[in-house]
Amino acid sequence: MSLTRRDFTRLSALGLAARFTPGLNAQSSSRKIGYAIIGLGRIAGNFMRGILATANSSVTGLVSGHREKADRIAAQYGVPAGSIYNYENFDEILHNPVIDAVYVALPNSMHAEFTIRAAKAGKHVLCEKPMSSTVAEAEAMIAACKQAHVKLMIAYRCHYEPVHLRAIKLIRDGAIGQVQSIQSAFGFSCDPSDWRLKKKLAGGGPVFDVGIYCLNATRYLTGEEPVDFEAFASTLDHSGRFNEVEENVVWTEKFPSGILASCSTTYGAQMDGYFRVYGSRGWLEVDPAFNYDGPRLRAQYWGTRLDEQSPARDPYQFAAEADHFSNCILNGLEPTSPGEEGLRDMNYITRIYRSAGITL
Amino acid sequence: MSLTRRDFTRLSALGLAARFTPGLNAQSSSRKIGYAIIGLGRIAGNFMRGILATANSSVTGLVSGHREKADRIAAQYGVPAGSIYNYENFDEILHNPVIDAVYVALPNSMHAEFTIRAAKAGKHVLCEKPMSSTVAEAEAMIAACKQAHVKLMIAYRCHYEPVHLRAIKLIRDGAIGQVQSIQSAFGFSCDPSDWRLKKKLAGGGPVFDVGIYCLNATRYLTGEEPVDFEAFASTLDHSGRFNEVEENVVWTEKFPSGILASCSTTYGAQMDGYFRVYGSRGWLEVDPAFNYDGPRLRAQYWGTRLDEQSPARDPYQFAAEADHFSNCILNGLEPTSPGEEGLRDMNYITRIYRSAGITL
Repeated sequence: MSLTRRDFTRLSALGLAARFTPGLNAQSSSRKIGYAIIGLGRIAGNFMRGILATANSSVTGLVSGHREKADRIAAQYGVPAGSIYNYENFDEILHNPVIDAVYVALPNSMHAEFTIRAAKAGKHVLCEKPMSSTVAEAEAMIAACKQAHVKLMIAYRCHYEPVHLRAIKLIRDGAIGQVQSIQSAFGFSCDPSDWRLKKKLAGGGPVFDVGIYCLNATRYLTGEEPVDFEAFASTLDHSGRFNEVEENVVWTEKFPSGILASCSTTYGAQMDGYFRVYGSRGWLEVDPAFNYDGPRLRAQYWGTRLDEQSPARDPYQFAAEADHFSNCILNGLEPTSPGEEGLRDMNYITRIYRSAGITL
Repeated sequence: MSLTRRDFTRLSALGLAARFTPGLNAQSSSRKIGYAIIGLGRIAGNFMRGILATANSSVTGLVSGHREKADRIAAQYGVPAGSIYNYENFDEILHNPVIDAVYVALPNSMHAEFTIRAAKAGKHVLCEKPMSSTVAEAEAMIAACKQAHVKLMIAYRCHYEPVHLRAIKLIRDGAIGQVQSIQSAFGFSCDPSDWRLKKKLAGGGPVFDVGIYCLNATRYLTGEEPVDFEAFASTLDHSGRFNEVEENVVWTEKFPSGILASCSTTYGAQMDGYFRVYGSRGWLEVDPAFNYDGPRLRAQYWGTRLDEQSPARDPYQFAAEADHFSNCILNGLEPTSPGEEGLRDMNYITRIYRSAGITL
């Protein structure tokens, strides 16, 4: 994990360091949590490299439809041949003692099935966001994990990212006064072959995959739950790329205190993720905010100017979330971003699409 | 006017220089257009200093309720004592041959009365934005100027600002591909004594005074007229400052092509004006965008990166708009931002407030 000593000092002072410092909380046990990785796409690669940077986690199983790919990765991470599964025999992990937890990195609509099967096999679940493709699936996932007495965490990596935590703390400490409104955006131009453009696999368009970062950020920045949404959706590229899901969504949110937010997402343009928070006594922005490398925080309040580019590099965010979940398992704690957190966003995403006139 | 030679070269190449170059189009006449300034507040000062930087305009009259203030400014600009009016005897400008036009810089709700009285006195009208406090007033202003055969221009200074014109040209030339969405914000923390907080004078809250920049920008950046609006409004400061108008508004717009916009405005926070335009092949932002000094344009597309901070300084934008209007009068041309342009925004502002549940 590539946090500098300066980051450490700063974050220790904020009382937050323990939360994302690999190994620090895991000292109560020398045991490492063994993860089976389900779905060996790009983000699974980041997560596995992140695990290497932790003191309390290791890759002990792989689940894939492509045996050759799995064998190659198994060799890389020292996973024994007996811990390689496919989507059919996956339930046999029940009998594998080196697998404590699974990391679900499949297309959205497969999250529910594999979370529930993992829970039935007695394994803890770290599931990528969005939690699912429907609210009903999210509820079923929570119920299954409760019933099986396993932990469920949704992989909201920004919840464990020092710069985001620092932004939250500055706001809570009143640095910029009363927050008035937030602007946020995140999107990218999606390759036509991407599963994200298939409604059956993705559940819906860009709010599911990238807009969810803006939505979730408005919630952790305000510390409130939005009570009202308005949204527009549109498609300008009629080449066929957007036959199943829409290209653009913009939406506004209203919070109980009166704080307002306006957000944009797209699968049709490069839209670097950022947020700006406007307060009665100053402003704060993180831009870029949602990339894998360290974000940049700028703020201005009470004559203070901040401009801090985090030197942290990918996969530090994945290391932080793996470390957190393993620590929760080792020490019987609840994750900061449990299934209920993912369910809230699923409910809000559903409301955003309903306001935009789109049936999910 | 503080455009550098480099600006000139660049803008000439774009074929836009003639539009805002003081004096260039006025050479058909050596005569200067004489302006009476109505309302001697802060923005009138900017405008008068701007006039000094033009070759085709001069300050030849003042209209104020404060005679001492008017006398002081008259001495500064060489305005004869016989060209100083108050709000009661203002109609006598009819008989003053050195006054060709008026510049209306009063609180919003007074724009209609003084525009109509000026038109009846046979004088051309350059009126600050927002054009009025209601749609009906805006319509009456247009009708009165038509009937009197005088020109009416709304002071949308960004329409004459080189960096904004360059952003528009880049977009129209397809530099960033098909525009997908726009984000924009502009606001400030309003002093409790400001007339902008009095509904009767302002017509409404921050959309009238600052949000209008975002609204207008989304229109000139897209070259389209929005067909749908959704908005939320809120007040968090209950000290009494916002007893008459709301503190915050956020809204979204949908354009006929499918382009979407999300905007924020406030009277309760420092919210530096900016816009970001996301296209299928790149993005472009102007930030700051709406200040009086030269804006900064950044863009990235097709491997090109732009980062240009305009060296122009206040009052160059006021000089450009005065030059444009004087040129229109001298050469019998229609202003780029006529009354009809102001009326459109008044209609949209009304729809934004209606969507937010606020009666104007």
